[in-house]
Amino acid sequence: MDIGFIGLGVMGQPMAGHLIAAGHQLHLHRVKDRSRPLVEQGGLAADSARAVADAAEVIIVMVPDTPDVEDVLFGPDGVAEGLSPGKTVIDMSSISPVATRDFAARIAEAGCAYVDAPVSGGEAGAKAASLSIMAGGAQADFDRILPILEIMGQNINLVGEVGAGQTAKIANQIIVALTIGAVAEGLLFASKAGADPAKVRSALMGGLASSRILELHGARMTDRTFDPGFRIALHRKDVNNALEAARSLNITLPATAQVQELFKACTAHGFGDLDHSALIRALEMMSDHEIGG
Amino acid sequence: MDIGFIGLGVMGQPMAGHLIAAGHQLHLHRVKDRSRPLVEQGGLAADSARAVADAAEVIIVMVPDTPDVEDVLFGPDGVAEGLSPGKTVIDMSSISPVATRDFAARIAEAGCAYVDAPVSGGEAGAKAASLSIMAGGAQADFDRILPILEIMGQNINLVGEVGAGQTAKIANQIIVALTIGAVAEGLLFASKAGADPAKVRSALMGGLASSRILELHGARMTDRTFDPGFRIALHRKDVNNALEAARSLNITLPATAQVQELFKACTAHGFGDLDHSALIRALEMMSDHEIGG
Repeated sequence: MDIGFIGLGVMGQPMAGHLIAAGHQLHLHRVKDRSRPLVEQGGLAADSARAVADAAEVIIVMVPDTPDVEDVLFGPDGVAEGLSPGKTVIDMSSISPVATRDFAARIAEAGCAYVDAPVSGGEAGAKAASLSIMAGGAQADFDRILPILEIMGQNINLVGEVGAGQTAKIANQIIVALTIGAVAEGLLFASKAGADPAKVRSALMGGLASSRILELHGARMTDRTFDPGFRIALHRKDVNNALEAARSLNITLPATAQVQELFKACTAHGFGDLDHSALIRALEMMSDHEIGG
Repeated sequence: MDIGFIGLGVMGQPMAGHLIAAGHQLHLHRVKDRSRPLVEQGGLAADSARAVADAAEVIIVMVPDTPDVEDVLFGPDGVAEGLSPGKTVIDMSSISPVATRDFAARIAEAGCAYVDAPVSGGEAGAKAASLSIMAGGAQADFDRILPILEIMGQNINLVGEVGAGQTAKIANQIIVALTIGAVAEGLLFASKAGADPAKVRSALMGGLASSRILELHGARMTDRTFDPGFRIALHRKDVNNALEAARSLNITLPATAQVQELFKACTAHGFGDLDHSALIRALEMMSDHEIGG
């Protein structure tokens, strides 16, 4: 199938590579040095997002934030200018669910389908084609593109109408942030009360307290390995999206609001570029106690 | 081996049964109707905790709270009166780590060893002999009793000196409470923003947000099955222990303090006897939105 791919960053590059390897004809926008190997594998470099949309049946977008998606879709020489009825736009970026519904409505005016399909799993998941994909859109549209998504991910779910994928991604980021906070408070308590936090972490795995965060981020806290991973600055952006949406929806999220204050404290102390597991440093500063090293 | 077992409740009853089945001679205190089968299996009913300590080499205590342990050990006709040098007391109750260190020092005056070994896994874990056991004590004492613990549990760890087992158990209860809060805020957000929370929960399993709590308690929230489980009233007691210990240790635990307020709100509305997953009801009331049913 002719598939357009716009956004060849650390995530998009390996994702597009999997699609080429699976036999699809890729149409690529903004090919740079890093993405040159995709052309060598058979991908076609296009001059514009418009040209990508013109050549492809399905157009995948994987860019950093809401304004980037808007620019790629509706800016000069954008996707919208190249669309014709019957095509499908898949936005795999992590952006605002509210803006997503607006974008989908505008794409529908061109007679085209829109599915939001943000991912979880990071660069490692993109390379291993093991991304979790949370999709929002019509069932028929989802069914049609599912074989394409399956080339890039493993746990793929349609969670609702357009925008629901972005909503699920925000829920994911809320739960991840608060679970990091949960593990941080538990291990800080254990350490200052005189137990070995690394042993406590092992003892708790397998029980009700067990989580991927306790396993991975708990170990980063006790080993003091705060190389990202996922940077606090990026998680702050996601939590801000959550809190803004919660404000407009009148949802009370007390723990989410609180964890943002801890991320802020981390940023104030120069830890914004550390992995989000460094959230524990905000608690350590308040308690004047570090848990390990 | 002659083993004493004091506290034949919903947890102690099956735990003692496993020890008998493994061939040990059990000495039981306060045998009631429910624990009569243990005598039929070969357990010996003793007249007092003192008599249990007199007859057994290792004495296991499994009672509800700190004052119960103190009463069993140091009250009239208590364990302390029956001890002679070389015996070992194992407290598998979930109680205060500070009181635990005091109890251990008083037992040491009788020339006996003390290991705190609280458990996680509930009635189901006790019946299946799959309890997680978090132990505090001297390495030699732990090594000596490990074969006994292995009859009742599976994930068994020495996490530090006396009291460290209780500390780890409190850390466990902190992490469990805050992870329930994390899942509740994530699913509430998803639901009010228009996604199906049950589908979001499934979509998030397998990713970074995955946890035993998302799996079990997330399903209870979307299915509205709030039968305990583990009652909010009991979790409040544990979180109170955590906050009291944190106060004396000068540890700042902002999320733990906040989750206690949510448990309090649940209690105020008559939900204290529901499962701790009903924490989401406090958030739902504030947001005037229920996530499922």
